[in-house]
Amino acid sequence: MLSDSISWIKNLQFDKNGLLPAIAQDYKTNSILMLAWMNADALYETVRTKKAVYWSRSRNRLWRKGEESGHVQIIHEIRTDCDKDVILIKVEQTGGISCHTGRNSCFFLRLDKSKTDISEDIDRLIWEETDTVLKDPKYIYK
Amino acid sequence: MLSDSISWIKNLQFDKNGLLPAIAQDYKTNSILMLAWMNADALYETVRTKKAVYWSRSRNRLWRKGEESGHVQIIHEIRTDCDKDVILIKVEQTGGISCHTGRNSCFFLRLDKSKTDISEDIDRLIWEETDTVLKDPKYIYK
Repeated sequence: MLSDSISWIKNLQFDKNGLLPAIAQDYKTNSILMLAWMNADALYETVRTKKAVYWSRSRNRLWRKGEESGHVQIIHEIRTDCDKDVILIKVEQTGGISCHTGRNSCFFLRLDKSKTDISEDIDRLIWEETDTVLKDPKYIYK
Repeated sequence: MLSDSISWIKNLQFDKNGLLPAIAQDYKTNSILMLAWMNADALYETVRTKKAVYWSRSRNRLWRKGEESGHVQIIHEIRTDCDKDVILIKVEQTGGISCHTGRNSCFFLRLDKSKTDISEDIDRLIWEETDTVLKDPKYIYK
């Protein structure tokens, strides 16, 4: 990869598959939109185009976020952490929808808190769906 | 592991090492504090004790956040994403310091934006240190 030779990319600690987790955060609300993965080329193209590009592990190819839905993520800031093994991008989320379910954020499953008051009940918690579906997915992906 | 038999833990998609990335977010400011990893036992203990417990990949053992520094993370909410392969915890960060460098957040390295206006300069970007060191690390770890 061309991007491997670039100093600020070489500084990063990619995992043994050549990937880093990348967190997308709304630059205005600070809402965490999603976590996906980037390789060196995805990160380089993200910086070059100022739009989020990930590496799709399921499709094994670059994933230009919004390529089908139009819900692109415009880059406002890029950070890494003290270990240089995670990327944080602050983005403007086009359409306000980052999740394929039509929600603002992919993190819409909340561990039910109502039952956590009694420790004996911890084994029976559930992931509750929350947050509003802003657009039916069948109208997002034509 | 005992925790493997619990329904809401079995619902999650751990990676082949039995781990999930876990993002810690300040429950008040929405600041992203850090990303670490959890296995089933770490997550179960996090819920049971209402304090963040991670799996340390370098030390290969449970890492009760704040066990040395006192900077524990008190759990306010736990979420997962649409793929159930990432955990998001909203926490109250004791001492306001999550990073071993003495900063609020581990994400204090920002890709220099001043040079991104000309695409030819992308190869010469640097990771700039930013954010205030709130406490000298030598006073955090006795």
